[in-house]
Amino acid sequence: MKSFGYEQVTLCDGFWKSVRERNATVSLMNVYRRFAQTGRFAALRCEKQDNPSHIFFDSDVAKWLEAAAYLQHDYPDAQVRAIIDETVDTIIGHQLPCGYFNSYYQVYKPEKIFMERTEHELYCAGHLIEAAVALDKCGVNARLLPAMRKYADYIYERFYVRRDTGFTTCGHPEIELALVRLYDHTGEGKYLELAKFFLDERGVREEEIYSAMDRAYDQSHMPVRKQRSAVGHAVRALYLYCAMADVGRRTGDAELLEACRALFSDIVRSKLYLTGGVGSGWWGERFTIAYDLPNSQAYAETCAAIALVFFCERLAQAGDRAGYHAVIERALYNNILAAESADGRGFYYVNPLAADAKYARYARSVPGMPFKPLLQRAEVFGCSCCPPNLVRLFAQIGSFAYGEEDGVLYVHQYISSQISACGMELSLTAQLPFAGSVNIFVRGRGRLALRIPVWQTHISCSVNGQSTEPEAEGDYLYFSVDGDTRIEVVFGMRPRFVWANGHVRADSGRKAVEYGPLVLCAEEADNGGDLSGVEISSLERAEVVRTENGLKVRVPARRLRTGDALYSYLPPEPESFTLTLIPYYSWANRGENDMQVWFL
Amino acid sequence: MKSFGYEQVTLCDGFWKSVRERNATVSLMNVYRRFAQTGRFAALRCEKQDNPSHIFFDSDVAKWLEAAAYLQHDYPDAQVRAIIDETVDTIIGHQLPCGYFNSYYQVYKPEKIFMERTEHELYCAGHLIEAAVALDKCGVNARLLPAMRKYADYIYERFYVRRDTGFTTCGHPEIELALVRLYDHTGEGKYLELAKFFLDERGVREEEIYSAMDRAYDQSHMPVRKQRSAVGHAVRALYLYCAMADVGRRTGDAELLEACRALFSDIVRSKLYLTGGVGSGWWGERFTIAYDLPNSQAYAETCAAIALVFFCERLAQAGDRAGYHAVIERALYNNILAAESADGRGFYYVNPLAADAKYARYARSVPGMPFKPLLQRAEVFGCSCCPPNLVRLFAQIGSFAYGEEDGVLYVHQYISSQISACGMELSLTAQLPFAGSVNIFVRGRGRLALRIPVWQTHISCSVNGQSTEPEAEGDYLYFSVDGDTRIEVVFGMRPRFVWANGHVRADSGRKAVEYGPLVLCAEEADNGGDLSGVEISSLERAEVVRTENGLKVRVPARRLRTGDALYSYLPPEPESFTLTLIPYYSWANRGENDMQVWFL
Repeated sequence: MKSFGYEQVTLCDGFWKSVRERNATVSLMNVYRRFAQTGRFAALRCEKQDNPSHIFFDSDVAKWLEAAAYLQHDYPDAQVRAIIDETVDTIIGHQLPCGYFNSYYQVYKPEKIFMERTEHELYCAGHLIEAAVALDKCGVNARLLPAMRKYADYIYERFYVRRDTGFTTCGHPEIELALVRLYDHTGEGKYLELAKFFLDERGVREEEIYSAMDRAYDQSHMPVRKQRSAVGHAVRALYLYCAMADVGRRTGDAELLEACRALFSDIVRSKLYLTGGVGSGWWGERFTIAYDLPNSQAYAETCAAIALVFFCERLAQAGDRAGYHAVIERALYNNILAAESADGRGFYYVNPLAADAKYARYARSVPGMPFKPLLQRAEVFGCSCCPPNLVRLFAQIGSFAYGEEDGVLYVHQYISSQISACGMELSLTAQLPFAGSVNIFVRGRGRLALRIPVWQTHISCSVNGQSTEPEAEGDYLYFSVDGDTRIEVVFGMRPRFVWANGHVRADSGRKAVEYGPLVLCAEEADNGGDLSGVEISSLERAEVVRTENGLKVRVPARRLRTGDALYSYLPPEPESFTLTLIPYYSWANRGENDMQVWFL
Repeated sequence: MKSFGYEQVTLCDGFWKSVRERNATVSLMNVYRRFAQTGRFAALRCEKQDNPSHIFFDSDVAKWLEAAAYLQHDYPDAQVRAIIDETVDTIIGHQLPCGYFNSYYQVYKPEKIFMERTEHELYCAGHLIEAAVALDKCGVNARLLPAMRKYADYIYERFYVRRDTGFTTCGHPEIELALVRLYDHTGEGKYLELAKFFLDERGVREEEIYSAMDRAYDQSHMPVRKQRSAVGHAVRALYLYCAMADVGRRTGDAELLEACRALFSDIVRSKLYLTGGVGSGWWGERFTIAYDLPNSQAYAETCAAIALVFFCERLAQAGDRAGYHAVIERALYNNILAAESADGRGFYYVNPLAADAKYARYARSVPGMPFKPLLQRAEVFGCSCCPPNLVRLFAQIGSFAYGEEDGVLYVHQYISSQISACGMELSLTAQLPFAGSVNIFVRGRGRLALRIPVWQTHISCSVNGQSTEPEAEGDYLYFSVDGDTRIEVVFGMRPRFVWANGHVRADSGRKAVEYGPLVLCAEEADNGGDLSGVEISSLERAEVVRTENGLKVRVPARRLRTGDALYSYLPPEPESFTLTLIPYYSWANRGENDMQVWFL
């Protein structure tokens, strides 16, 4: 299954174009400003930054460059362009003659270059390489690419040819997938060779590990080909799996692909939040064990959900159909969208499925409390990987819409847009996520496949106004098009209960409500507190109300009222009220308050 | 309300005598052996111990001495006696000429004596003073008392007269209540004066606080008289409140007693586990906020429940009736009993209300995981305050049974025992906690009051075989006795649901089962896993089965079965089965397994 670049997909007015526009017009420069204020751009001039996160700074800026590159075609901006060029010049200006560039090591520890496995050195290199490829491919800046090729060549020389470095594989995977991108863009086989080398060497020797963590934390507990259970730091894991899928597909390495499929299956069977979040454990930002999916203590890092999307997209490209796009949809409309505030300025790093504002205030009051739930989005973090990752994801959102296989044009995500492919010009208008109708106008001749969402309650379909029952196979509806064709499909959407597997302790006796691709939640702002005690017995009388920016679902519910005593032999008395549900992604836009996804 | 010392109460065959016998014959020496193996006794010889817990070692040994003292009358043991004497000699032998003794400071930091507020220095002194009083009072060893008086005099001189110390109040309260015990035993007013001084000075100045904690952690956030909310480290809090009640009662300080009553009320209204545990937060072993009572992550330190018992007992002595003995009963039969293994060798420090064995194993696998649930009791801990605290509590268990006020003999806890008081000789046989019948034989003339347990479902009563309806007032049944009298009371006991307040998120939609004073729980060993999804809709068909060492309750229940999928639009299918419940205190005696208290 071939995918299309975001640049081949023209977004049309609709939900995702609005998200991307907010991204281009607000988030991009807001992230820039906060990064500039916190020394991230200055750091590239090899200036000392008194900040423990300096080790990540190159990657933060690199992701911003990548996002900026993707947005220049549709949202050209001279100021952004100037920042890009100046930043590239700064990087090149401070690059060592050998090709090496790392603003942290060059300033603080030049003698430790390529000696410390756990300090994100090749991770930063990977993101710089990704930025270079993006800038070149988008025609925005061609100078970073040769510079980063030189850097990649130097990495190849040191890690692969001379093997004189202090470690073999980086503690934070990223370089591997970046090298494959560099290979794809340049056609230079040594980059793929190096990516494969890094994969092959992982988990086969005793390398330095992170203090207070186990080997599984950075997926070096066993050879990657043998891995079947998603473990350790979730972003590390998923960036690694992305590279495994990349290398597997390009080299025809069935073992790598088999491992990837098993890891995907492990995630969707036992380690995926309803919102598409992964990595439930705050300690180590990591995958823990099967079915351990706490709600208010969910970690579910934004970058992990983004990395999951990247991984699913790569698996889909590898040819089989195992619900990859359904998982992408779940992550995009829930965990990932929720990670940005409605105004595009604030971001979540951690994405819980329940919020307790009183507890969050308490946690903040104790200086050393190791995990403090953040119930309002922030513009920047100490470790601020997530904001630029979101910006670069939304910038390329169109790339997740379509695919091509055997000459058939596949619609994976219903994003209002236009594309020319497989002999057809297609124009698609979708009401998702607020309604299930999809209107497609096709010019040309070819075959089209529309993904059947897992959440649809019924499907109705017409071609050129004629009701029809299309050919369905697997997760797709197939249409043959010959000449101008208007296809209308309605995927039935109504509020539905969803139950978690009985092994998920956190959700025992509870159910969530979905509406189409949206997970819904209740907020204190609409419903008052004590949301954990809210009981919904039926959705039959649920009322869906479209609002200016989204929707609300109002549903009869009961709240369990008790007396003042802490414990009582008298059962709580249920009190009826109307519960207001909103999309999970829109929570926490009205101040800090309680939130709940799973109800009695 | 006057209390009686444990020595005035002779335990008779029954539940608590067995507990105390296990304590005397197994736990005492087992704790000694593990303490000796871990250098705790050697430390007193002012030998260096390469152990960060060395700062607590004096207090560990002191609590052991206190326990040993209480047990010598009923369980005389030459070996124990020799250890006591040798330990006392060691302490005296290493005491500085000024009276000071602290095995840690004398060895490691003699120049820092009385300079560091947060290193448990006066806390250790307090426990040594308590041990000295106990040894003297029990006639076991009279030499430690004068030595510790000298130490107390030195503390008085430095902290109160010269005020040349580096801090004013100790970061861990304990010295205050110990000084009151010393005052009670010796009649020397300066000790009470010093205790009051320490209370008065707390929270009125900016003293050194613990790193990573707030001022509330050690209750120095405001003057103690103004405190109304139980906050901070739970053991610190409750030892402090004990001293406030002690000084309040002895000096007629109504303000102190009012604060104590408000603090008690705050605890029972919003911060008390069903098991009588307190201090829900593992970070800082502390009280968090109202209604924050997580189950599997409950901290509920054993020492905190013990300290709560001490506090309740003191409040009861202060004269009002506010359910203090009901809270003592709840803590004793549940949190506290559960903290010791059935064989008397293992101890819990942390007492969760739900256990997830898989998660516990995972947590252990990550070296730096900050909170690792311990699902099997240990013989000793790094910080091993709880085991000797349990041993000294069980050793004096008889002291919680009776009280006297205005010449009336009160029975607070139904512990099979004999006592002579208030002109009566009373012999009481109780079937608690397994049945509610209490048989009392009284010789003499006087007035008797029996506490009505909160859990009783009905009361039947006879005097000399004649059914009667006794005078009831408040929480007590009153009987006038004139000559040999046989009183039989049955407090009806059946499995009952108990519900938590609607503000308790962790228990929303759930109920627990109590049987008399016992909180029941379900274990994987009897029922298989996934206990969080077990639903009990009625207790009408519950069957109570007495077993050799306790009881089991078998009740029809349902388990919610789901398919393999992580999420489903299909509701779980309930599967009927018979759930076996056991007393919470007996959990985890059959290997590491899952446990649940709150059911759907």
